[in-house]
Amino acid sequence: MLFTPRAIGFARTPFKERSQIPKGPGTKHEAEGTIEVLEEFAEGLKDIEGFSHLYLLWVFHQQEGFELLATPPGQTEAHGVFATRAPRRPNPIALTVVELLARDDRRLRVHGVDMVDGTPILDIKPYLSSIPDSSLRRGWLGK
Amino acid sequence: MLFTPRAIGFARTPFKERSQIPKGPGTKHEAEGTIEVLEEFAEGLKDIEGFSHLYLLWVFHQQEGFELLATPPGQTEAHGVFATRAPRRPNPIALTVVELLARDDRRLRVHGVDMVDGTPILDIKPYLSSIPDSSLRRGWLGK
Repeated sequence: MLFTPRAIGFARTPFKERSQIPKGPGTKHEAEGTIEVLEEFAEGLKDIEGFSHLYLLWVFHQQEGFELLATPPGQTEAHGVFATRAPRRPNPIALTVVELLARDDRRLRVHGVDMVDGTPILDIKPYLSSIPDSSLRRGWLGK
Repeated sequence: MLFTPRAIGFARTPFKERSQIPKGPGTKHEAEGTIEVLEEFAEGLKDIEGFSHLYLLWVFHQQEGFELLATPPGQTEAHGVFATRAPRRPNPIALTVVELLARDDRRLRVHGVDMVDGTPILDIKPYLSSIPDSSLRRGWLGK
């Protein structure tokens, strides 16, 4: 076993069900939510309020199993799961970049959530740098 | 248990030991390496060659335990682990953005590796969009 995943907190979002989350390539996520970090991990948030954007790593906890080819919403062609954001992955870990709006003790108010309410959060990391947009090629997604 | 992490492949890098990896905030990672995806997951790479940059999720497999406060290399002050990239995290998952140089079947030649040779890879995701540099605040790291 590589390690034992544990929730460091949970997401509070407006989405009670997965079907309510805007989906598909290019979707802009504009919803606000709160990341509630568990008391036992709260000290790990020291100085996080200085960062404008954060990576959230979280679990696709409503998924079972995986498939190596996935057809994203609105697409007709299947792509390799590692060339998509599809949830049914060998390791069901999701990654979202959010904007940190405010911190209230162990609660982080964030913009850009795309997970259902109650989703277990695995990790929070500072978002430090970007690849210039002009350097990016986006494969089957096009420009 | 949230899920059981498994390696989808392993990183081949020039770094035989952690001490050889350039460290510290602001470090540019210029090393090249190869991500060797296991045969059983190779189909998941379909169409990945169209993307210029990829997220690699991998395991800090040489770490045990975690600490909630971390003092990054070259720093004197401790910060919350979630405001750093420190390896000793509640879930020892690392995130690296690499440039995809070439694909040879189930081997991805990439630029920007910062993990030791033999590191287990958990996931590969397409890097799709960036936050404009002018919108970023980098907390204790400054500009």
